[in-house]
Amino acid sequence: MAAPAFTSSQEAEQAFYEAFERSNLDAMMAVWAEDEEVYCIHPGGPRLTGLEKIRESFRQIFGSGVRMRFQLRGAQQLRGGLLAVHTVYEYITVVGERQPASPVIATNVYANVGGSWRMVGHHGSAVPDAEPDPQSGPTSSSLLH
Amino acid sequence: MAAPAFTSSQEAEQAFYEAFERSNLDAMMAVWAEDEEVYCIHPGGPRLTGLEKIRESFRQIFGSGVRMRFQLRGAQQLRGGLLAVHTVYEYITVVGERQPASPVIATNVYANVGGSWRMVGHHGSAVPDAEPDPQSGPTSSSLLH
Repeated sequence: MAAPAFTSSQEAEQAFYEAFERSNLDAMMAVWAEDEEVYCIHPGGPRLTGLEKIRESFRQIFGSGVRMRFQLRGAQQLRGGLLAVHTVYEYITVVGERQPASPVIATNVYANVGGSWRMVGHHGSAVPDAEPDPQSGPTSSSLLH
Repeated sequence: MAAPAFTSSQEAEQAFYEAFERSNLDAMMAVWAEDEEVYCIHPGGPRLTGLEKIRESFRQIFGSGVRMRFQLRGAQQLRGGLLAVHTVYEYITVVGERQPASPVIATNVYANVGGSWRMVGHHGSAVPDAEPDPQSGPTSSSLLH
């Protein structure tokens, strides 16, 4: 599968959550940069470094048969040249379950690699079931330069 | 207190943990960029956005009288122009307690603001008491450009 080109970190982020919802391992891994230093921290888990470990973790998640739907809220972005850092609340619903799971706050890091934006880091952790900071709109962005 | 100049993200990170260990609120806040978009996610907590909320959170932590010692392990860094993203395991010992607390994995984000590196994001979450990925040395660094 030829790697798609993501023209912005937002586009890469959208592809990440779409691949997650579709449990599509190839599409998920196409979002990640081909770099030894990429890392992924699933909620409550350790840091996984490198594509091989990250692929294996998503293979297990997708292989469990649990299908998830993500509602993203309170997105904030920091950008500085070749890196972009997004934080976003993930409101996750497991398909077939009535109760939504605990919200997760995620720090997603993207890098511009050869003109295309790719995920280089994901850090998720469960948070109290609270609203995102009220002063932040649905999306805010800050350009650092 | 005049804001110190940090010539690297590593220097800013060192100042962050030193201020934490000394429970020094002014020194802690001097590490942070003066930017409305800075965020801090303490382990198990929500995202706090903006210096005011971040200052208040550290005021409460430092005011509790609990003194902490940090041993940092498995540091990894991604850099891309004006942003640097560090992930690091924090092995925390509370002064006066025998048992170390659960390790925390932190994603620390730094920005070059006017020539000085400042913290712009901190995301900490508790992790299982495991060793950092064995293939990663004490410090590894990747330059994205």
